[in-house]
Amino acid sequence: MKIEQFVAQSEGEWKSMRSSHSLAFQQFEQVISRIKIKLLNTNDSKVLDLLYESNYSEMEVVMPFSIEWEAESDWSEEEELGDKATSGSSIFVPIPSSSEEGVILRNLGYAESIQAKSNYHFMPNDSLMLNTEYEKTIAEEQIWFASKNVRFRSSVVRISGTEGVLQASFASEIKQNILQT
Amino acid sequence: MKIEQFVAQSEGEWKSMRSSHSLAFQQFEQVISRIKIKLLNTNDSKVLDLLYESNYSEMEVVMPFSIEWEAESDWSEEEELGDKATSGSSIFVPIPSSSEEGVILRNLGYAESIQAKSNYHFMPNDSLMLNTEYEKTIAEEQIWFASKNVRFRSSVVRISGTEGVLQASFASEIKQNILQT
Repeated sequence: MKIEQFVAQSEGEWKSMRSSHSLAFQQFEQVISRIKIKLLNTNDSKVLDLLYESNYSEMEVVMPFSIEWEAESDWSEEEELGDKATSGSSIFVPIPSSSEEGVILRNLGYAESIQAKSNYHFMPNDSLMLNTEYEKTIAEEQIWFASKNVRFRSSVVRISGTEGVLQASFASEIKQNILQT
Repeated sequence: MKIEQFVAQSEGEWKSMRSSHSLAFQQFEQVISRIKIKLLNTNDSKVLDLLYESNYSEMEVVMPFSIEWEAESDWSEEEELGDKATSGSSIFVPIPSSSEEGVILRNLGYAESIQAKSNYHFMPNDSLMLNTEYEKTIAEEQIWFASKNVRFRSSVVRISGTEGVLQASFASEIKQNILQT
């Protein structure tokens, strides 16, 4: 089960350098943040809450986890871009349909701050591909490990029903030695 | 032959937003540049020069091309990082071994400014993966189209023989309407 290995390898504290490109306005944004990825119990109330309104059962869930993030600094070129939350957290509930693919329920989406369901699959090189349809946008994310302690994440956000790309971003993430709780 | 479609779709003038992450120093660099991708004849002297010292023949070459780039602006955080050439050009000579993979000869590498040979293959989602071994480093590049006029490029540079990652970069490229020669 690849999603198990992927989540196990992701668990811990990461330092993230993220660059975002706004394609229409040719604006850059860059942020350093700390990210904590923690495993949750399948019967955690936050996991059960997400399942409650879905068609999935607790039995199908594999290694649910939470991600907490906190921005350390932001060298945004334009102050107006700085209106994003500088900290937050989200719950992720993977539900595999095979060893290579499945869905992940999230209580807080990436492109829009709403509950979301992502389809995922693994590429031959073990990159995790995530596709999430929101109300107005579609996010395509790719996450891959360069080594045990370095992972990369690219995200492309499109306008639903068009080929138009709103924003792309890329994060380099380095694992910190000890998970500080 | 996927490389033919890929090169054909890449031909033209692109505006590129590129962000680089220096992992060891947690430094960002961002550059806007213009990129011109032009098809070359197989019997162009620059193509023949590259073939001359290789084990490949003119008959094996498919759609050679040149890339010229010119930086428009650079908001590098650190002036010391700004020692890279702000313009340049390179010749690319694809030599497929099957419809999905092969090698690309370059007269100027990405990670090191030396002649280089990249192995390439296409992923199931048509992303082009390039792997280039230089003298001291290995570059892993991924290039994919989000639409006819938008492509993305991620690059990870490692130290040869280690898992250490020196630098990662990500470029968002938007096709300009007319190829200005």
